[in-house]
Amino acid sequence: MDRLGSQLDFVQEAGRLKGVLRQTVLARPARRENSAEHSWHLALMALALAGHAPAGTDIGRVTAMLVIHDLVEVDAGDLSVYADGAARARQEAAEHTAAERIFGLLPPDQAHELLGLWLEFEERVSPEAKFARALDRLQPMLENVRVGGGTWTSWAVTADEVLEKVALIEDGSASLGLFARQMIEQAVRDGILTPGASADPAAR
Amino acid sequence: MDRLGSQLDFVQEAGRLKGVLRQTVLARPARRENSAEHSWHLALMALALAGHAPAGTDIGRVTAMLVIHDLVEVDAGDLSVYADGAARARQEAAEHTAAERIFGLLPPDQAHELLGLWLEFEERVSPEAKFARALDRLQPMLENVRVGGGTWTSWAVTADEVLEKVALIEDGSASLGLFARQMIEQAVRDGILTPGASADPAAR
Repeated sequence: MDRLGSQLDFVQEAGRLKGVLRQTVLARPARRENSAEHSWHLALMALALAGHAPAGTDIGRVTAMLVIHDLVEVDAGDLSVYADGAARARQEAAEHTAAERIFGLLPPDQAHELLGLWLEFEERVSPEAKFARALDRLQPMLENVRVGGGTWTSWAVTADEVLEKVALIEDGSASLGLFARQMIEQAVRDGILTPGASADPAAR
Repeated sequence: MDRLGSQLDFVQEAGRLKGVLRQTVLARPARRENSAEHSWHLALMALALAGHAPAGTDIGRVTAMLVIHDLVEVDAGDLSVYADGAARARQEAAEHTAAERIFGLLPPDQAHELLGLWLEFEERVSPEAKFARALDRLQPMLENVRVGGGTWTSWAVTADEVLEKVALIEDGSASLGLFARQMIEQAVRDGILTPGASADPAAR
């Protein structure tokens, strides 16, 4: 098949991400979020919050990473960040198989390039991947605060479990990590998040 | 307000784009498309179809433009590309007012930068804006073919009206313009698009 045909097959298959529902519940519109609009929101956050990335971070690369980061869910579906270890291991294997298939729809040179970008996001070593992953963790927290609990309530998550996730935000952006920590402390004070043992500052 | 507070206000307000429904009907999931997931799909197309942009086109800038191009619809809503001239003039005025308000939520330097990027998209002079606008025109055509008519049927559009829109795709990308023209000729042969006067090659 010609290059354009392969590229359009990839674009069409990727479009199915609009039908993958996440755990996150939105305030407005009041419904569950899908992974395509989530990916868009993260790309927008990369543009708006670029100043919170470490100096020298390539924001164009962050944006591209966020646009493709959830494509594997077309095959593998979405899993809560609060799922247990066994479920996460199964999900990881399914996502790697999905990545080979979906990026493999592209001409080989582009498949190689985008699979590499996806792996970079997953491995979370480069400043770009760390910042992208920080935004991916921050966005559902913002939505949970907005709806007054969201997945924190439906999954019976405690503040200490959320604070574990904040470590990943801090690793990508010091200022966003600090903001997330303060937001969680406020959520506990507001009664929309249950305090956990390590929510006590002295225990951290 | 501090910069982060302003940036997060903008991010939150922008999220309402998930609730703006477009005319485009998707095949899978079978429902109308919203403007947030549409923007994501276009950003993905920019990455996958980058090779069809004129040499030297800054794809990072195209992607950023596509991520923000529909934000004005949070206030102004979506309008069909086949709406009449008076409706389009009203829409244009509403979109400019919306752009001032929505980008104005950001700190002034960022508001200036993103408003400029949106105006660049609207003015369609730079190669980046021309390529971004070409993708914005191509994507609904791809969806219409996929669902066997879509807005072409519901708006009773003829091939000559669609071919007028193809001129804008050709202006952004010669190869995508050629592809779109062939796709429309095929759609007429397949009976999912009504032939119009200028669908006769001799009349173009």
